[in-house]
Amino acid sequence: MPDIADSIRVIAFDVFGTVVDWHGSVKREVEDLVPGVDGGAFALAWRAGYQPAMAEVMAQGEWVILDVLHRRILDRVLPEFGLGGLDEAQRRHLNRVWHRLDPWPESVEGLARLKSKFMVSTLSNGNIGLLAEMGKRAGLPWDVILCAETFNKYKPHPDTYTGVARTFDLEPGEVMLAAAHHDDLEAARNCGLRTAYIERPWEFGRDQPQDITPREANSLHATSIVHLAEQLGC
Amino acid sequence: MPDIADSIRVIAFDVFGTVVDWHGSVKREVEDLVPGVDGGAFALAWRAGYQPAMAEVMAQGEWVILDVLHRRILDRVLPEFGLGGLDEAQRRHLNRVWHRLDPWPESVEGLARLKSKFMVSTLSNGNIGLLAEMGKRAGLPWDVILCAETFNKYKPHPDTYTGVARTFDLEPGEVMLAAAHHDDLEAARNCGLRTAYIERPWEFGRDQPQDITPREANSLHATSIVHLAEQLGC
Repeated sequence: MPDIADSIRVIAFDVFGTVVDWHGSVKREVEDLVPGVDGGAFALAWRAGYQPAMAEVMAQGEWVILDVLHRRILDRVLPEFGLGGLDEAQRRHLNRVWHRLDPWPESVEGLARLKSKFMVSTLSNGNIGLLAEMGKRAGLPWDVILCAETFNKYKPHPDTYTGVARTFDLEPGEVMLAAAHHDDLEAARNCGLRTAYIERPWEFGRDQPQDITPREANSLHATSIVHLAEQLGC
Repeated sequence: MPDIADSIRVIAFDVFGTVVDWHGSVKREVEDLVPGVDGGAFALAWRAGYQPAMAEVMAQGEWVILDVLHRRILDRVLPEFGLGGLDEAQRRHLNRVWHRLDPWPESVEGLARLKSKFMVSTLSNGNIGLLAEMGKRAGLPWDVILCAETFNKYKPHPDTYTGVARTFDLEPGEVMLAAAHHDDLEAARNCGLRTAYIERPWEFGRDQPQDITPREANSLHATSIVHLAEQLGC
């Protein structure tokens, strides 16, 4: 069997949770904005609205970017935390916290090492502006930003996974998805992509450790993006 | 009047001719591939098919990426230069010369300096894969790749210029287009963008010097991308 590092050309990364720490970043900003609020619970409630909101959009054949979905969910969650009094400017600013998420400590180094050998891309349900601003602020050295907005479909729609291969005129097996989420990886595998699981046990905060048990369906299992780079000879 | 550097947030660059030297790069590859052919004339003939091919696509409401248009034109131009005998693999490889264009000598430095202060984007009729591979090979430090494929329209369709502003939730006047072509800049101005003209007198080769006379409609006139960076305090 040829070495996997020789058969892949593009590594596409899930972003929220895999590359950046949304829970810790949202928690911190909310607690700075309104001292005393439970920022961790707020982050979880905001994020919990994300899958249903995307599913609704996809079911209706509607297309809106994630910034719009985040704002719809935010307006619903704020009163639940006694924050219904935030004005429009505060809501706009808070909604863009998703543009200001901090990377996990080794993400930048890991991506930079992978970039020396592979085309390194996003494949996120975030929108282009969100991902570009996040990447610029955090120093994430993407070669290209591909996302739901590029393909007008949210993951796990097959068009998103096969879209990465099509963008580079490659076979699906020449693309690897790296993600901390088994459902995302499974959907990518069903489209013929290789998959790398990245352990992010604290994605949902210290109170909710995630099961990071390896699953053999993945091409690679890595404790971090740097560990993925090491396994691929970078 | 506020300093223009304080009012713009994104600088979007035309790429072919403005950032990279398509004429010199295509000429060199063709002459390496088939010694004795007039590579300069070949490059001009290939490029001359580009505007009509795009206009035809736009008129028919069709959508194809530039790689496809380049190939259609290539297959027509090859026999005109006695190169009809190139096989499929050679044609595929040659068609991707547009992914391997070299930057003008100061492009990388100029973009890196501008990147310190502004969101630096492409706004090209090239496709995403073409621009990502070109950028990676040449070291062009784009924050994000936006192009005709992003908006499913070729420049000078207004959706491409306003699309950059929409991507970042900005007013058109907060975006500047930098280009070596007055028609591109004029179309951007008609959409409310600021414009910077970049002098590229040798875009069509040493035999066809271009008129680089300043036009006052542009917000800025620069002899190079580095000169643009200097004018914007980078």
